[in-house]
Amino acid sequence: MILKRTVVLFTDSERSAYKCGMPKRSQQATRDTRTDILKRALDLASIDGLSGVTIGRLSDSISMSKSGLFAHFGSKEDLQMAIVDAAAEAFEKAVVGEERAHAGGLPRLVEVAEAWIRYLEKGPFRGGCFFAAVSPEIDDRPGRVRDRVVELTRGWLAILEAEAEAAREAGDLGPDADPSQLAFEIHAFVQEANWAFQLHGDAEAFRRARRAVRRTLHSAGATTD
Amino acid sequence: MILKRTVVLFTDSERSAYKCGMPKRSQQATRDTRTDILKRALDLASIDGLSGVTIGRLSDSISMSKSGLFAHFGSKEDLQMAIVDAAAEAFEKAVVGEERAHAGGLPRLVEVAEAWIRYLEKGPFRGGCFFAAVSPEIDDRPGRVRDRVVELTRGWLAILEAEAEAAREAGDLGPDADPSQLAFEIHAFVQEANWAFQLHGDAEAFRRARRAVRRTLHSAGATTD
Repeated sequence: MILKRTVVLFTDSERSAYKCGMPKRSQQATRDTRTDILKRALDLASIDGLSGVTIGRLSDSISMSKSGLFAHFGSKEDLQMAIVDAAAEAFEKAVVGEERAHAGGLPRLVEVAEAWIRYLEKGPFRGGCFFAAVSPEIDDRPGRVRDRVVELTRGWLAILEAEAEAAREAGDLGPDADPSQLAFEIHAFVQEANWAFQLHGDAEAFRRARRAVRRTLHSAGATTD
Repeated sequence: MILKRTVVLFTDSERSAYKCGMPKRSQQATRDTRTDILKRALDLASIDGLSGVTIGRLSDSISMSKSGLFAHFGSKEDLQMAIVDAAAEAFEKAVVGEERAHAGGLPRLVEVAEAWIRYLEKGPFRGGCFFAAVSPEIDDRPGRVRDRVVELTRGWLAILEAEAEAAREAGDLGPDADPSQLAFEIHAFVQEANWAFQLHGDAEAFRRARRAVRRTLHSAGATTD
């Protein structure tokens, strides 16, 4: 899985700190605290963007001292990287790594798209899709954080494209179907649904995205619904 | 035009100030200065969001005193409203109000979609589409600014839907074509292209959006290309 490779939830130095000094119970407690902080940080970032999640603001929001937070994350950039990786981990768990009923072909492509729609429909974070929320904020800011978001979002598009290619190879789509174009279109529908739901409160949006995915696959030669 | 009705570039109090006291040349100078400030503010907002455009930051960026800026905009919220309206005005001029070669039907729908794609491809502001840039930022912040962005973006979707309906009524689309679904899909493709271009630097994105629009219209029964 492309996304799986890129997700690093703990840095090397943190991992060795856990291994070297701390007793097991403390290691677990530290991990739990970190997970709780990141959960809150993800909600904040999905609403106010990554730059809205400062160590000061997070410290107020979870009643932990700034120095306590610094011990977990060090710099603002490290905190932002940890938030991005936590978002990727949640996505990986709920969408990419979800057990599939189908091994390949068109049914699997439909299943993957549906898993993504369902994930956003449920509302993973208070502000909806994390990556949609932070994209406009970071796309003009070169650096590690943008590079990671680019890598992760490209990775997800590549997965959609690979599933579309597998469906074509299985003969479930027409021979002229363009996997890269299909990935673009399916991705567009789901992002649009998230946008319309978040901004307009349009509850119809996810149903429209499902209909659009079916239509696009149909026009790419899908014989089943 | 729905967008046209909602755009108010000058508040009533500003308008009467112009009318009452100032000589004509000063009124024009004030307007020009305001236009220049808003041009810079739009670039900043398309990169850093509306909340990134504070009177302090704008004052540094255009070398005007804070008090000078206050005289033009008053509060931070008034400044944000003026920025949103200036973005709407630019969009109105370049896309909605552009002279059309076709009076109606499918050719006109295609023309409207193409005008939007071309506008974003040219890069209206440094950070791309203004409304896409600010949507995630303001969708969780109730108030005048969000209401205006919701009204404007809904207005644009309604225009796309009306053009699709006109194309169906002209017999250029199948009788089962769903104008609202078509507006959702066309809107999705163009927003996706803007996203992919801004975040991934994907120069292919606008070409993909054009291809997707053609395909969607074709699958809605369009007989011409």
